[in-house]
Amino acid sequence: MRATIANILDRSLTKNFILGVIIFNAALMGLETVDSVMARFAGLVRVLDFACLSIFIAEIGAKIYARGLRFFRDGWNIFDFLIVAIALVPAGQSLSALRALRVLRVFRVLSAAPRLRRVVEGFVTALPGMASVFLLMAIIFYISSVIATNLFGDQFPEWFGNLPRSAYSLFQIMTLESWSMGIVRPVMVVYPLAWMFFIPFILATTFAVVNLLVGLIVNSMQDAHHEEEGVLTENYRDEVLERLAQIERKLDAQNKG
Amino acid sequence: MRATIANILDRSLTKNFILGVIIFNAALMGLETVDSVMARFAGLVRVLDFACLSIFIAEIGAKIYARGLRFFRDGWNIFDFLIVAIALVPAGQSLSALRALRVLRVFRVLSAAPRLRRVVEGFVTALPGMASVFLLMAIIFYISSVIATNLFGDQFPEWFGNLPRSAYSLFQIMTLESWSMGIVRPVMVVYPLAWMFFIPFILATTFAVVNLLVGLIVNSMQDAHHEEEGVLTENYRDEVLERLAQIERKLDAQNKG
Amino acid sequence: MRATIANILDRSLTKNFILGVIIFNAALMGLETVDSVMARFAGLVRVLDFACLSIFIAEIGAKIYARGLRFFRDGWNIFDFLIVAIALVPAGQSLSALRALRVLRVFRVLSAAPRLRRVVEGFVTALPGMASVFLLMAIIFYISSVIATNLFGDQFPEWFGNLPRSAYSLFQIMTLESWSMGIVRPVMVVYPLAWMFFIPFILATTFAVVNLLVGLIVNSMQDAHHEEEGVLTENYRDEVLERLAQIERKLDAQNKG
Amino acid sequence: MRATIANILDRSLTKNFILGVIIFNAALMGLETVDSVMARFAGLVRVLDFACLSIFIAEIGAKIYARGLRFFRDGWNIFDFLIVAIALVPAGQSLSALRALRVLRVFRVLSAAPRLRRVVEGFVTALPGMASVFLLMAIIFYISSVIATNLFGDQFPEWFGNLPRSAYSLFQIMTLESWSMGIVRPVMVVYPLAWMFFIPFILATTFAVVNLLVGLIVNSMQDAHHEEEGVLTENYRDEVLERLAQIERKLDAQNKG
Repeated sequence: MRATIANILDRSLTKNFILGVIIFNAALMGLETVDSVMARFAGLVRVLDFACLSIFIAEIGAKIYARGLRFFRDGWNIFDFLIVAIALVPAGQSLSALRALRVLRVFRVLSAAPRLRRVVEGFVTALPGMASVFLLMAIIFYISSVIATNLFGDQFPEWFGNLPRSAYSLFQIMTLESWSMGIVRPVMVVYPLAWMFFIPFILATTFAVVNLLVGLIVNSMQDAHHEEEGVLTENYRDEVLERLAQIERKLDAQNKG
Repeated sequence: MRATIANILDRSLTKNFILGVIIFNAALMGLETVDSVMARFAGLVRVLDFACLSIFIAEIGAKIYARGLRFFRDGWNIFDFLIVAIALVPAGQSLSALRALRVLRVFRVLSAAPRLRRVVEGFVTALPGMASVFLLMAIIFYISSVIATNLFGDQFPEWFGNLPRSAYSLFQIMTLESWSMGIVRPVMVVYPLAWMFFIPFILATTFAVVNLLVGLIVNSMQDAHHEEEGVLTENYRDEVLERLAQIERKLDAQNKG
Repeated sequence: MRATIANILDRSLTKNFILGVIIFNAALMGLETVDSVMARFAGLVRVLDFACLSIFIAEIGAKIYARGLRFFRDGWNIFDFLIVAIALVPAGQSLSALRALRVLRVFRVLSAAPRLRRVVEGFVTALPGMASVFLLMAIIFYISSVIATNLFGDQFPEWFGNLPRSAYSLFQIMTLESWSMGIVRPVMVVYPLAWMFFIPFILATTFAVVNLLVGLIVNSMQDAHHEEEGVLTENYRDEVLERLAQIERKLDAQNKG
Repeated sequence: MRATIANILDRSLTKNFILGVIIFNAALMGLETVDSVMARFAGLVRVLDFACLSIFIAEIGAKIYARGLRFFRDGWNIFDFLIVAIALVPAGQSLSALRALRVLRVFRVLSAAPRLRRVVEGFVTALPGMASVFLLMAIIFYISSVIATNLFGDQFPEWFGNLPRSAYSLFQIMTLESWSMGIVRPVMVVYPLAWMFFIPFILATTFAVVNLLVGLIVNSMQDAHHEEEGVLTENYRDEVLERLAQIERKLDAQNKG
């Protein structure tokens, strides 16, 4: 029984069917945003949406039944499980924020389409190598937020009133959006030396981001380099050394002979 | 007859003449935007413009006659054909939007000048390798647009009233233009947690764009590397292995002899 | 005595304790920005903060005692010393700007956590290679500031009234923030040819920044390349040449023999 | 006489003296922007400025005398000559724009300081490789300007009233400054389909800029690669092949002998 279900789940027909349901569900969710459609077909759309969700639940259930706890060893399975679980929560409460989370269901296409899967895996595997720089940026943000809150919090509560607000404003400044005309020039009217805080902050975070980028490029380049040339070069080198050793052995044999 | 025409078309004199007509036509189109010129020479400019268009039509016609259906096998020929065809459409209707499309005719310079041709070909060949990331970005945009329309559509119909508006606003946010002062801060006045949607969106799309860039760099680097060192290295390796084998054969001959 | 203290300072237990104190102090400084917490626990927070500072001073003092003047030969020690020294200054004056500097103490985590230390060292070692481009940018900024002050200072004193203001405005323009709608379009209302100054400035500084980035990428790539392949390749090359020489020597011996 | 002057000009003492005069002159020009200084020392500053200019003219004159027309064969000499020539023009007219050009004299530091000279040479040698992409961008800008002037010129004369205005606005849009909130959203109020022009424009120009960057990185990487490994590798390869040939020759000698 378990083996049969596992077998059915592994067929490419089943996989393509699930992929089709995901895409159909995505289109449905798009339709839900069109008021004129919802005015006439709200009932039908809800029924079809519920049908899609049921298929997803059935698929996840069948997978868990077929594979048992091993199901949760694969990151992508956990991803699918969480997304369907999130979609179930709002059913009772119907808050718009929770309803919006239902849309995350469309992200299942990432696990269902192998090419997208590989792209996302490529992204995720690049993250650990950048952990140190991320940690450094977190420290810069934390210290800068504390300083900004202390210095400018009283006069500009909207932007630097507390730590989260300062962190948000500093993130905006890091992206260079309206940093000068929108934030720093008004602050400099009250604190003329404010640029001594903001310009080093911009330089430091930009430099850190540039280093992230450089690290990413160097890593990708090395991976590509290895994959392609590594085996070939190693084989060639081994063969050259092997043949040289062979020649020496033959010469030794002659000398003795 | 066909062969003669094909022969004339292939001459560099013909090609340079066509290139000259394209550049002359481009200058004409620039003149058309100067009101003081058009007030006095509108008739002359229109006649010359019509003459340029006639030359293009004659050239395309001659090419199709000379090469038959093979003409449409080359992407650049289809490009030229479409551009001239677009230029013909507005002749009857004279809407300003369609008239503007006529200007696309100047893009023929891309197919007529070999150096530009190669640059564009370089761009186009880089696109398929980025297809997966583009698809991923399309999915992120679609899901984010549905969520943004659900969450903020009622309160901010100007920005997130329907899917296309949300997609446009999210594109603006991805380019970081006025994302905070212009969009997210006003939204946060009504929905204080809106940053939980927008900041992950910015991080995800920026990261995807960075990955596109990294992919482009790595690919270009490998192409350059191959082109240049590939042949040299391979020849060298073959020669070393060949010579080693030769030496071994000679030693074997000695040992037997 | 000195040796014992040096020994205690080098233990990983001591190092982790200091790291813990730094993190605890960072959390304290975050709490200080929360008004409701400070209303009730201001005294306790100040005492704990003072305790942390005392530990840092004791640690630095012990290090200087144990190592003597050699202490100041390590850049990181000087970094720690300056940060603690800055934290001591405001104790008497309690100006908010000086109090904010106290937060810099959290940066001690950079010297205390080995991984962050390496990231920062990576950043710092990249700087000298970029010194020439930085100098060039400083020259471009100086000349442009003088020109902008001469040309636009009278009409736009807010932006270009003196050298520092011009330099700040030009930095803003270099980051492309509101450069056109905010600065250049208003300036062009008075001086229609102002774009002849600002657009070359944008192109030149952007190009210089791009060159910094390219230099950084090329350097990182070479370092990575060397580290990894250098030793392997050199060993291989030496071995091949050595063996070839060996074979020749044997053949010479045969010929003589 | 000529040889003596050429000799004096080539001494490092002379070169450092000129470099010192340039830096002193740069400082003078900075002082000229400070009103309080000029109120008291205007006469002194003008005299010193005139002295610096005289020294530059004397140096250029001596160089031309010593080297004759060969002087104009070096790009840097022409650069120095033009900069001093520009500084002479405004002497009679004293317009502020021309006076500002005088500041360009400070750029002579680029030719006088060898390190900066090399950085600028590095920039300039990178330009020809990017000529095709620049030409492509010029074509995209020209066509887009004509289209934008045709489509939006009547309703938005401020931004797209004629070709130069359109080109400036499109440059602003390319840098992503206020492109949406400042330009495209207002335009879309009148022409709802305007995004069909602007978004492809942004994508095309961004992609072209990215390609410039990629080209620059790949070129720099190859130059660095060649410079460093080229000679070593070639020597090694030649030696291996030479030795292999030698061994074969010896074996042939044995076989014959």
